[in-house]
Amino acid sequence: MAAQEHRFDPNFTKHVIETIGPACGERERFVMSALIRHVHDFAREVELTVDEWTLGTKFLNSIGQISDAKRNEGHRISDVLGLESLVDEIAHKHVNESGESPTSSSILGPFWSPNAPFRENGDSVIMSPHSGHVTLMHGVVSDMETKAPIKNAVFDFWQASSNGKYDFQDPDNQVDNNLRGKFRTNDKGEYHFYCLKPTAYSLPTDGPAGMLLKLLDRHPMRPAHIHLMISADDYKPVTTQIFPKDDPYLETDTVFAVKDDLVVDFTPLKGDDKAELECVYNVSLAPKGSDKIPDATRLPSKA
Amino acid sequence: MAAQEHRFDPNFTKHVIETIGPACGERERFVMSALIRHVHDFAREVELTVDEWTLGTKFLNSIGQISDAKRNEGHRISDVLGLESLVDEIAHKHVNESGESPTSSSILGPFWSPNAPFRENGDSVIMSPHSGHVTLMHGVVSDMETKAPIKNAVFDFWQASSNGKYDFQDPDNQVDNNLRGKFRTNDKGEYHFYCLKPTAYSLPTDGPAGMLLKLLDRHPMRPAHIHLMISADDYKPVTTQIFPKDDPYLETDTVFAVKDDLVVDFTPLKGDDKAELECVYNVSLAPKGSDKIPDATRLPSKA
Repeated sequence: MAAQEHRFDPNFTKHVIETIGPACGERERFVMSALIRHVHDFAREVELTVDEWTLGTKFLNSIGQISDAKRNEGHRISDVLGLESLVDEIAHKHVNESGESPTSSSILGPFWSPNAPFRENGDSVIMSPHSGHVTLMHGVVSDMETKAPIKNAVFDFWQASSNGKYDFQDPDNQVDNNLRGKFRTNDKGEYHFYCLKPTAYSLPTDGPAGMLLKLLDRHPMRPAHIHLMISADDYKPVTTQIFPKDDPYLETDTVFAVKDDLVVDFTPLKGDDKAELECVYNVSLAPKGSDKIPDATRLPSKA
Repeated sequence: MAAQEHRFDPNFTKHVIETIGPACGERERFVMSALIRHVHDFAREVELTVDEWTLGTKFLNSIGQISDAKRNEGHRISDVLGLESLVDEIAHKHVNESGESPTSSSILGPFWSPNAPFRENGDSVIMSPHSGHVTLMHGVVSDMETKAPIKNAVFDFWQASSNGKYDFQDPDNQVDNNLRGKFRTNDKGEYHFYCLKPTAYSLPTDGPAGMLLKLLDRHPMRPAHIHLMISADDYKPVTTQIFPKDDPYLETDTVFAVKDDLVVDFTPLKGDDKAELECVYNVSLAPKGSDKIPDATRLPSKA
């Protein structure tokens, strides 16, 4: 339904937007005007009832009320509605001249830690007991355009344990920085270390996100995944996730983070008594300045 | 910008909506699908950045974190964006056969109390010290169609004191139910009592609503107003606000609740030593069943 095709006051939304004052920044005015317009169009389109609006304001308050330093429910609600994944797509719409793309990005999620330690190639990130499958993960980080290996790239890795919990959600069973670590690529652009084959897990369902998923008759499962953030001097960093191809939740990831080129294989490994599986994952980084999409599309129209 | 006129994944929003399960109610599916579509269209239209999205999730959490039993910041944010006023318009789109309308509705706001006492016609609602102007408020409640007076209608009244605060925001200066009261109309449909000429006041600006108003370079002022909720057996109740016509904030009410027919005059009163001003306010109620707008417009399209 277009903005004008309704039987309500045709000037109301314009009036609300026009109260924005002259000291409001250009970008802020552009973003907030669009937000107000979409909120109003939504309400008119569905003829939102007073009871539904009241429920909505209570729901809004409940999001912050359950949030704290270790729980970001606002982030999670946004994920469940697909917004983080969409913002990620918008941010990483890289296309290089040849039409090739670097490794796809995916959402950061709320479990990245700025404190993960550097480890040596060949180390294991497994510090605490688990019931998972140990995997040798290795690959090469290379330049998207020249295909040359990138040395000294930082490969930042984090994953949940076999019980579906990250270290700081699970202090009784996991030491700090269990299943986290940063690795540097060698002169050939290579990295390798030991981790777990990841396990599918449920989002916490005891708060507003759980209520929303129940209302929508959706499951709360994330497919098994490994989080990665790869960076190198003179390259655009990429934040991504990779998913085992045999996971049953790939199509219905509750936060919509799966992309085809992020689905990988975990295969049986022979001759390494430290691991039963192997995952080969190569990364392609775009050099800085290779983005051919003009930033102007992000500015407000001057029309 | 229509949903398809963008350079992003054309199937993403459809995919998110299609994860809604079969047990989701028809109305819930309709409302939430529209919400997801508008949120996504908004993000694509403004090309929402990761930083803006992060700020948004923090802002979302902050709304609930400042809310408690006496402070409903979610309600307030919704008001500042014009949503409560719009939902009110949607709910009260009454038109009778003659083309006449009952008294316009306006938003309830967060300060109505279910505990306001019944008082007698001729009583005063002023229980605590103030620096305002005492006003004799009176009028007739009548049937929108027959024009006949309605006896035993309940006229529920609440207002802030001359310092801009309601009783439960101001326990040091105001007794419970100061400036609140319910009155019943007599056999001629009349009510009368003493109150204050209302005073303009600022929304609380120490929380997210204040941040939002500052971002938008908007003032936080509500025009002076009196809250009313009028009900009678066999009539549709109306919740409304009335505004003195000399208020400087009528055009820019921070919650957009002013409508032309809700602007009233406070005139000097002679010969009553209890009041210096007079406000005549008549109310017209629509009989139940007089709504000619089919409810079908609120159902999801079957197309």
